[in-house]
Amino acid sequence: MRISELSSVTGVPVPTIKYYIREGLLPRGERTAANQARYGDTHVERLRLIRALREVADLPMSVIAEVVAALEEPEEAARGRPVSAALRAIGSTEAEVSESAERAVAALVDRRGWQVEPDFASYRALAAALTALERHWVRPYTDETLDRYAEVAERLAAFEIPDDWDPGQAGENAVAYAVLGTLLFEPIILAMRRLAHADRHARLTGKTRRRSGS
Amino acid sequence: MRISELSSVTGVPVPTIKYYIREGLLPRGERTAANQARYGDTHVERLRLIRALREVADLPMSVIAEVVAALEEPEEAARGRPVSAALRAIGSTEAEVSESAERAVAALVDRRGWQVEPDFASYRALAAALTALERHWVRPYTDETLDRYAEVAERLAAFEIPDDWDPGQAGENAVAYAVLGTLLFEPIILAMRRLAHADRHARLTGKTRRRSGS
Repeated sequence: MRISELSSVTGVPVPTIKYYIREGLLPRGERTAANQARYGDTHVERLRLIRALREVADLPMSVIAEVVAALEEPEEAARGRPVSAALRAIGSTEAEVSESAERAVAALVDRRGWQVEPDFASYRALAAALTALERHWVRPYTDETLDRYAEVAERLAAFEIPDDWDPGQAGENAVAYAVLGTLLFEPIILAMRRLAHADRHARLTGKTRRRSGS
Repeated sequence: MRISELSSVTGVPVPTIKYYIREGLLPRGERTAANQARYGDTHVERLRLIRALREVADLPMSVIAEVVAALEEPEEAARGRPVSAALRAIGSTEAEVSESAERAVAALVDRRGWQVEPDFASYRALAAALTALERHWVRPYTDETLDRYAEVAERLAAFEIPDDWDPGQAGENAVAYAVLGTLLFEPIILAMRRLAHADRHARLTGKTRRRSGS
């Protein structure tokens, strides 16, 4: 297809496509005439991935470039490097982190044996969330509390990323799957938990509200 | 304490305190002289609650007024109405909702027997999240998938709101507890899940990264 068709199929404007090509994020098309090139499914997939990483995951272009570079190195790709580069960067935060929260996260990661480094964005995001908890919550959190949440997180991850999933094989799709899977289900989990809280609250107050309304 | 002290204890500016009093959100202080009033712990608690509802829960003043009004009616308070008014309003969204997502949420709430009405903000937030999933995710979601997440949400709610918790008794504190508890733990749950994903990904690629870093 021509660049205009590639644009309409993916919803990415032509100037943006040209920018991605110049930056090396998207391979050039196959030249068909002096001023024309042909694009194919790999371009469509790559653009969808870049779009997901930008719009859904809100990742900076430098991280997207790193993901794409890893996709183009067969050895890096086989080691799952494109997916891990994306997961490492999701959810970065500038929020303040207390020393006690930082220690609590390090101890938690150690207790759970999680293979994640302190430079993971979520590592810092967790410390920032615990710092907010220290400030606003009525009582200090304990290792036991954190472990309970960690167990739930592991249970989620175990069914969300099944044993037979191989992030090294499927290229663009594996990255999109990992990133979108992580992000798109977040509001679902939170909304369901809020509903479960409201349900539990209704039960504990013995207020057996009828289905048909009040 | 005087209004200036109430302000410094709670971090709420004096003009804002006066505004809350005019709006009926905060009881007047006990008059001690022509132009002076004395404030106590109940004022501190109420201001902390209003602040949590505004700053952490991002609730509109109309909902906060409803919560406060319910707090001041002993019968309403005993029925847990202040907490349910707050929980009902958390997380409202203007995002688009597809008919199929709306049906899926109604069916889910019915299957789980959750005592929540369609006018709960999270009810719509869940439908909006499913609508985003329909648009961006590689395959359709199933009832089985939603039930798996619902089970996790119920498990969370069961240990987060223990059986002996009585939302009708503790007034301001019960509302703050319910609202802050729902919200402050959200980023913790999400960050832990992202870390669990990264860990699972590292294991599935057989990339046993060493603790000391690369």
